[in-house]
Amino acid sequence: MSITQPLGFRAAGATAGLKPSGKSDLALIVRDGPDDLAASAAVFTANAVVGAPVVVGRRLRAAWLAGRPAARAVLVNAGNSNAATGAAGIRDAEACADAVAQRIGAPPGSVIPSSTGIIGRPLPVDRIRAALPALAGALTRGPDADAAAAQAIMTTDLVPKSASRQVTLGGARISLGAIAKGSGMIAPRLQCDARPPAPSATMLAFITTDARLSNPDLHAALARAAARSFNRISVDNHPSCSDTVICLASGQAGPRLAAGSAELAAFEAVLADLCRDLSEQIVADGEGATRVFRVLVRGADDELSAERIAREVVNSPLVKCAIHGRDANWGRIVTAAGNAGISFNPDLASLRIGPVEVYRQGLPIVEALGDPRLAQAMNAPRVECALTVGRGPGEAWMLGCDLSARYVSINADYTT
Amino acid sequence: MSITQPLGFRAAGATAGLKPSGKSDLALIVRDGPDDLAASAAVFTANAVVGAPVVVGRRLRAAWLAGRPAARAVLVNAGNSNAATGAAGIRDAEACADAVAQRIGAPPGSVIPSSTGIIGRPLPVDRIRAALPALAGALTRGPDADAAAAQAIMTTDLVPKSASRQVTLGGARISLGAIAKGSGMIAPRLQCDARPPAPSATMLAFITTDARLSNPDLHAALARAAARSFNRISVDNHPSCSDTVICLASGQAGPRLAAGSAELAAFEAVLADLCRDLSEQIVADGEGATRVFRVLVRGADDELSAERIAREVVNSPLVKCAIHGRDANWGRIVTAAGNAGISFNPDLASLRIGPVEVYRQGLPIVEALGDPRLAQAMNAPRVECALTVGRGPGEAWMLGCDLSARYVSINADYTT
Repeated sequence: MSITQPLGFRAAGATAGLKPSGKSDLALIVRDGPDDLAASAAVFTANAVVGAPVVVGRRLRAAWLAGRPAARAVLVNAGNSNAATGAAGIRDAEACADAVAQRIGAPPGSVIPSSTGIIGRPLPVDRIRAALPALAGALTRGPDADAAAAQAIMTTDLVPKSASRQVTLGGARISLGAIAKGSGMIAPRLQCDARPPAPSATMLAFITTDARLSNPDLHAALARAAARSFNRISVDNHPSCSDTVICLASGQAGPRLAAGSAELAAFEAVLADLCRDLSEQIVADGEGATRVFRVLVRGADDELSAERIAREVVNSPLVKCAIHGRDANWGRIVTAAGNAGISFNPDLASLRIGPVEVYRQGLPIVEALGDPRLAQAMNAPRVECALTVGRGPGEAWMLGCDLSARYVSINADYTT
Repeated sequence: MSITQPLGFRAAGATAGLKPSGKSDLALIVRDGPDDLAASAAVFTANAVVGAPVVVGRRLRAAWLAGRPAARAVLVNAGNSNAATGAAGIRDAEACADAVAQRIGAPPGSVIPSSTGIIGRPLPVDRIRAALPALAGALTRGPDADAAAAQAIMTTDLVPKSASRQVTLGGARISLGAIAKGSGMIAPRLQCDARPPAPSATMLAFITTDARLSNPDLHAALARAAARSFNRISVDNHPSCSDTVICLASGQAGPRLAAGSAELAAFEAVLADLCRDLSEQIVADGEGATRVFRVLVRGADDELSAERIAREVVNSPLVKCAIHGRDANWGRIVTAAGNAGISFNPDLASLRIGPVEVYRQGLPIVEALGDPRLAQAMNAPRVECALTVGRGPGEAWMLGCDLSARYVSINADYTT
């Protein structure tokens, strides 16, 4: 089970006819129970161009943080991103959300709309409205409901994505569940702090939990978790305008996690682990990807510098092609690192691929290139690279995938 | 003719055996005539990791700017980049340069070394030394010498690259000539000003002129010209550590171009035009490229903001695949633009592909997608996109190329 494992949640999937394939395209996640126990949090794309649901979602988030009641439900559609649709798109998103609110007996403004799919086409509101009775009627708990919701939000995904965690905090058994989608346009840079806007991507994740905590505490925990998970993956370093991670807490597995408490910190750690799990599932399903590779950068002045270097490496087409070709091309990795706009001393740099050090103090270790453990590391489904750039405390990782001819055909044969 | 068209230059190419193909791999450009009429300038990669010749070249440039005599020659080898070779690599670069100086009767430190090719292997100094008699013996003027030098510096280039210009300044006929190489690892960010380091790439360009001007004036002109030409192209947004543009002026076509004069400004304009010509030749020969596309961004707050937006668009794998597939995918272009870390108002944005406006004030122009002129523009060997992001004065263009399955095979089949 995933999103309906935590107490107080039901889910369903349905078909509104938004996908050319005719597959299910509408998901609903509903929180039941008293609002005063509940909390909601969300982080959205940092792109300068955003879809209508992101505009609506940001308004709702501001309301939660201002003390308004937590959200009751999330309505997600695939097949149409409701982006580049102007003011009409915002009205459409609100109309669909309010129709759901009415049907589940919740007040207007208590349902969060979320959309993914083709850009620049009006949201087919009537089709969505027409599908709501079946969708609401199918709301239930259990693996089938979880799977139906996870299936409905898929676009170019080859496999549905979900995860769950359990943890005991303050004597109470707390559950977290999640579903996610994403395959192309993956390089999330969710706005989790004051950093300037940066690449975002079409990834959606919806997390439920029965933990009891405040809106601000849940938001802070989600933002920190997303910054070190979804924001650390890249398939193609291309932005979308719809990135969204939403977390609904029912609060039905008390006691309350107090601000600054060890229990709250423990909850955040589990939430971060859940987000990492989902983000790695997204990269593994990257368009045309045959394998993933993780670049761990150590010794930078700070974490942000390390992240920028790691990001440059995982996004280099030449490095991605080398990974695809199973070539331990240390030169491409080191020159990509040098390109991040972070100055470092190559004479202090070293690179390890798997267990094998291939570059040390600015020089390749020629004999290492013949090490059978290096070939083994390059042939693994997940290639691990560790790059040390100095003696600083800054450390960060990025997870990427290889670049294949299939990626090109998937995206060159596509027609607007 | 190219590099030997200006008065006071000879050139030659030879084979030292540095390329597995056995093709010519050594080029020499020599300036003759009095040093007091001459000038030299150079710009190098902004990468944090640089090859040995860049270290040596930066020292020489500092000497010119400090009033030391202009350079007498440039020795260029392909097949080995002499990068990631440590202190020994610097000694090797200087040894080869000094061997040339001795042979042409020039003082030590008057010859600039430049290298491109495989990284992390010791420069085969003995082979280069052994080839110098033949190389120096072949020094001459004329199309054959120009072609021999242009051929020798090629790596994955499919075609040699050269250009020339003539202009009359202050009654004197002034010539400029140039050769260049570059195909992969192309996204030059030559350090032309105080901007932070950013992507560089394996591109080399060598420019000669018989204009008479000072080292500082030539350096300023070259830096400004490179910033708006070589730094405006990208094949794969991947850095190398060897980017170099060198300009040698013999001063034999006087009169002196005085600092701040209209003649000097006119010279810089011709130099910039020459650099644009070379940089466009490089993109057109990009690895796996079947066509190029230019993104002109207008209405940004300043030129740098416009350049960052244009750079984001030409480097997006999804946009590059759309260009390859001849798909007028306005959504990928607009979302890429939104990803540059430059905030703009989509409601003020518009996008034109060829003569057809496909996006206006945040909305697609649906009927435009059926316009036959749009299909014509997407099928052209050079696709022109104009993106307006606001009402500011900032304007800049970037030139990129499409992403093909051949790019992947070229770079995935490569082995270190």
